[in-house]
Amino acid sequence: METLHPQYIAGFVDGEGSFHIAIYKDGQMKTGLKIIPEFHVSQRVSSKDVLEGLIGFFGCGYLKENHSANKKDKTFVYVVRNRQDLLKTIIPFFNKYSLKTEKQKDFILFAKVVEMMQAGEHRNPAGIKKILQLAYQMNQGGRYRRKKHLLI
Amino acid sequence: METLHPQYIAGFVDGEGSFHIAIYKDGQMKTGLKIIPEFHVSQRVSSKDVLEGLIGFFGCGYLKENHSANKKDKTFVYVVRNRQDLLKTIIPFFNKYSLKTEKQKDFILFAKVVEMMQAGEHRNPAGIKKILQLAYQMNQGGRYRRKKHLLI
Repeated sequence: METLHPQYIAGFVDGEGSFHIAIYKDGQMKTGLKIIPEFHVSQRVSSKDVLEGLIGFFGCGYLKENHSANKKDKTFVYVVRNRQDLLKTIIPFFNKYSLKTEKQKDFILFAKVVEMMQAGEHRNPAGIKKILQLAYQMNQGGRYRRKKHLLI
Repeated sequence: METLHPQYIAGFVDGEGSFHIAIYKDGQMKTGLKIIPEFHVSQRVSSKDVLEGLIGFFGCGYLKENHSANKKDKTFVYVVRNRQDLLKTIIPFFNKYSLKTEKQKDFILFAKVVEMMQAGEHRNPAGIKKILQLAYQMNQGGRYRRKKHLLI
């Protein structure tokens, strides 16, 4: 596939992408929670090429089957979870090529959470409370979250 | 809203847009069918600005509530149905800024149908049969059509 244009990527992500803060209970963590910021873009397998184009463009992230256990779900997802990739590649890109939909608000909150984690604020209760407050404002108030309000 | 970049529009439409051939039974038509090619892009009301940006960019089309009868559906849709707007603006744009997903196949079929209609081929049974064959290949074999195979 030819190299994707950055503005094409901004438009495509504005439609199909998602900035998400996954929150898991984790007894190994001092705060009891594991926080995983994740940028992802899903497509049916027939349009998997575009996701490969994202790997080529950003030079980071990977593809996986969206729900490998569900044989009916033929979607693939491009995922970036590595914090340095988010900080050095994904966040600067969307700072430059801004989104035009309400997803822009999610991106700003997402970037704030990643920066707080880079500063280690997820390791103390006050920081994690603030992170959760930001995360729960994202993606239409977390309407797709399975478990809400773990701490706050 | 600032003017949208054409590549942003290509990416956004690749995610959120749709090229569709609506087919209605219509006793007024000699062939018994009315064929309406339509380009549309839907968004939640909170991202309606981008749809207004499409009107500003293309200089054609209009916005409407997606399902005005359903109070729970808060989506708006940008619609271009006028054949001259499709022929002079929308189709040339996507010939220049091509889509990267499987939607590109829909676009090619859509453009073919609009051109056949411009040549008047929807006014005779052989032409309309060919148009329906093309239309039924679109959008994953018409899986979202309410009524399939009206004629063929």
